[in-house]
Amino acid sequence: MNQDHLTWHTHRLAKAERIQMSGQKPFVLWLTGLSGSGKSTLADALEWRLYAMGLRTYLLDGDNVRHGLSKDLGFTDADRVENIRRIGETAKLMVDAGLIVITAFISPFRADRQMVREMLEPGEFVELYMDVPLEICEQRDPKGLYKKARTGQIKHFTGIDSPYEAPLAPELIATAELSVSEEVDRIVGYLVQHGKIQIGEQRKVLSAV
Amino acid sequence: MNQDHLTWHTHRLAKAERIQMSGQKPFVLWLTGLSGSGKSTLADALEWRLYAMGLRTYLLDGDNVRHGLSKDLGFTDADRVENIRRIGETAKLMVDAGLIVITAFISPFRADRQMVREMLEPGEFVELYMDVPLEICEQRDPKGLYKKARTGQIKHFTGIDSPYEAPLAPELIATAELSVSEEVDRIVGYLVQHGKIQIGEQRKVLSAV
Repeated sequence: MNQDHLTWHTHRLAKAERIQMSGQKPFVLWLTGLSGSGKSTLADALEWRLYAMGLRTYLLDGDNVRHGLSKDLGFTDADRVENIRRIGETAKLMVDAGLIVITAFISPFRADRQMVREMLEPGEFVELYMDVPLEICEQRDPKGLYKKARTGQIKHFTGIDSPYEAPLAPELIATAELSVSEEVDRIVGYLVQHGKIQIGEQRKVLSAV
Repeated sequence: MNQDHLTWHTHRLAKAERIQMSGQKPFVLWLTGLSGSGKSTLADALEWRLYAMGLRTYLLDGDNVRHGLSKDLGFTDADRVENIRRIGETAKLMVDAGLIVITAFISPFRADRQMVREMLEPGEFVELYMDVPLEICEQRDPKGLYKKARTGQIKHFTGIDSPYEAPLAPELIATAELSVSEEVDRIVGYLVQHGKIQIGEQRKVLSAV
């Protein structure tokens, strides 16, 4: 590496101006949980709800990351770490751009999620743990992946032959008990209550700050 | 690699909704040119002008990419290619998020810039060539890098011991003849004329589509 000739400039247009322009505070809502725990479904419903509230969001998931930014990576432990690192860095850039970023990745390792949390400013990382038992996920098996993992067709599959480390103190927990729209209600309620998002008059005030 | 178990979902919230919400069409304005050719200065001034016009932008450059997303990469040819690929993929995600992305990287190789152009939809990649002679860049040498390259302290330095391949058909060319603000005027004029950005009434119409 030969980076000693890199220098830092201050961009004239910074996060503060973007927040003022959009009237929203950017942050990352990081969904973590087993395959089949409902991350993509919940992320999609959440994004739609936030959009309906006039908020600017972006959803990062396997679909738009694994086929692009991380298409050179596989599913070994080292590649998973690098995948999460790149997602974290991209989410950070998007937060800097003023967006509310929702991510939906298994992201099985505590250290990796902690790494992303530390990339961001305090309060900008909201961890949402999909607390759905392996048995239910395996029963759902929407993509037939658990079946393939059990027969060895897929290696390094989280929950089968690769560990999942549940968050110790996530900001939010979703379970299989509530419907998707009930979960969305609850999560939006949390975000409003904790000042992550503003509704109606509040946003206008933020916008005018 | 073991990606055969990746599937594509359609996100409910897509680029079309974001364009409608913001009243702007996203694209990438890709600045390319030698170190010292004025990329960062022009990019910064351009972003500020677009912000003043109410447009949502993001500036990707060495500062926010080399210290984060690409911090594992050096300056060999292979690492430069991978750096540009990641920047391209990140810009693509940001375009999908509805942003106008300005990039300021030397990006010396034609094939790499072409790779990014091909990642995007037709019309979403606007190449801006900083056509400033090496002599002028070396004379400016704002970071003292040419001096270090000439004495061998920096290896693989574009223009000295690593080639720069000028664009053959860039959408825009900037030279050292005009002032920064004159260049910004000219570029904004081009973007309006070519329907990349809309001003005033036009934007309201796009917003209502």
